[in-house]
Amino acid sequence: MSNVTPHWIAVDWGTSNMRAWAMSASGTVLAEARSDKGMGALARDEFEPELLRTIGDWINGPTTIVACGMVGSRQGWVEAPYASVPCPALPDGLVRAPVQNPDLQVHVIPGIKQTDPADVMRGEETQIAGFLALNKNWDGVICLPGTHTKWVHVSADEVVSFQTFMTGELFATLSAYTVLRHSFGADGWDDAAFLTGVEDAMSRPERLAARLFSLRAEELLNDLSGAAARARLSGLLIGAELAAAKPYWLGQQIAVVGASKLTKLYVDALAAQSAPATQAKGDAITIAGLTAAYRRLKG
Amino acid sequence: MSNVTPHWIAVDWGTSNMRAWAMSASGTVLAEARSDKGMGALARDEFEPELLRTIGDWINGPTTIVACGMVGSRQGWVEAPYASVPCPALPDGLVRAPVQNPDLQVHVIPGIKQTDPADVMRGEETQIAGFLALNKNWDGVICLPGTHTKWVHVSADEVVSFQTFMTGELFATLSAYTVLRHSFGADGWDDAAFLTGVEDAMSRPERLAARLFSLRAEELLNDLSGAAARARLSGLLIGAELAAAKPYWLGQQIAVVGASKLTKLYVDALAAQSAPATQAKGDAITIAGLTAAYRRLKG
Repeated sequence: MSNVTPHWIAVDWGTSNMRAWAMSASGTVLAEARSDKGMGALARDEFEPELLRTIGDWINGPTTIVACGMVGSRQGWVEAPYASVPCPALPDGLVRAPVQNPDLQVHVIPGIKQTDPADVMRGEETQIAGFLALNKNWDGVICLPGTHTKWVHVSADEVVSFQTFMTGELFATLSAYTVLRHSFGADGWDDAAFLTGVEDAMSRPERLAARLFSLRAEELLNDLSGAAARARLSGLLIGAELAAAKPYWLGQQIAVVGASKLTKLYVDALAAQSAPATQAKGDAITIAGLTAAYRRLKG
Repeated sequence: MSNVTPHWIAVDWGTSNMRAWAMSASGTVLAEARSDKGMGALARDEFEPELLRTIGDWINGPTTIVACGMVGSRQGWVEAPYASVPCPALPDGLVRAPVQNPDLQVHVIPGIKQTDPADVMRGEETQIAGFLALNKNWDGVICLPGTHTKWVHVSADEVVSFQTFMTGELFATLSAYTVLRHSFGADGWDDAAFLTGVEDAMSRPERLAARLFSLRAEELLNDLSGAAARARLSGLLIGAELAAAKPYWLGQQIAVVGASKLTKLYVDALAAQSAPATQAKGDAITIAGLTAAYRRLKG
């Protein structure tokens, strides 16, 4: 039997993994757990068993659980329909997931959609709510780097508009499955090559498609190193994203929220465009967002 | 025993497959054979056995074989070092491949490289030579669509400069390995969606990175069909390529050479930019190029 007795449990359940935090009444984290069974690996009736397998020893009586992420998608535990922009980052309408265990009360946070241009988010809305909970009255643009990076215009505590870029997935896919994989070596990084890539893509974004094969040719003909090739590709893709997202960030207050390594690349790339950005760590922000949802629920 | 007795044999040996043609003295094709063992599937000492397995029954005494493509790369049967632009599409310097069978004389056509911007081709030089053999005194730009599409500036029978785009590989990779695969369905095509994609990418090329995830979101929110999503992605990628390749094709005589379906997409996309292009079928062009190399060899 566990000696962790949470007041409630916060869960971030994405496509590829799940993380859970045992929370105290005062909002501190008592314990953390994780599972590599993300939404993508689970059928609808497998979510509850997987949750209990991961954090069952935290359950000692009726327990409130607040969850965000792809757990609320159509393929997830229960569909939490999208709210539409403009809306608060935490709109009303948490959805109860069906459970067998009578001690569990699982509330799933809805995602947010935008009709034109068409776009969706699930999970990021909770990070946005967390950032706003920690930074009262903040207006500006929040960038959430990841597999599908989001740029979000926030004003008066509402999500006004947003746009998703597949930059992280593009980088992973190009690195793993195309001819470029031969040029990338196993590891390594080159900061100068990254910034060169950003600068190239920002200054001539219409030439991005021409620059990809050059990485391979420069390795064949000019001995471009694997570290430089990888970093330059990252720079080209993030630079292309910054070029396309310019209407979002130009002249705005900017916060970049996420895992520290990728977040730093975005902050560096923005700095090279004379656009200073605040950097915020992902976990604390997610927990703050789940906490805000819990308090609203109990409020 | 075969009743095919070729005067010589033409071979196009790429990364993923090999095709061979038994040629008469007058330059007609007597028979065709193919193997799915491309350069990527063969070690250096496996090329000759694979060739004999595929066309061994055409060999009845000393036989000249002329081959183009990745067979001449560092990982191929024998390395045929790149010629440098500017140079004839068929530069001097065919390289003999090492053989065990004394009846075989295998000549491999070198590729072409460009130092700045770094770029390489292998195989396409033979198609260019074939196109020029069939179209005397042709000056202009040749586009060779494929996994790695080439744009080639040709003047006075020389390759002046060229640029490679990974458009075909990008389309295949995005379709197979990213979240977009969920939106593409099994098959189908939508001409109007293709041209919309081309137009979008041409008119605002800096926004390409923003448009990819929209295909997924429009399927989720607006029921964009799989056929339309696939065709629009193709249009976006080809449009981005046309935007980046504009210095090549703008105001030039244009020929598009290759397999008919993909070739037609490029011709259609160029036509939408008021840039008429000649369409040329790939096989006849390749054979004409190999024939030009054979005649030079025997000349």
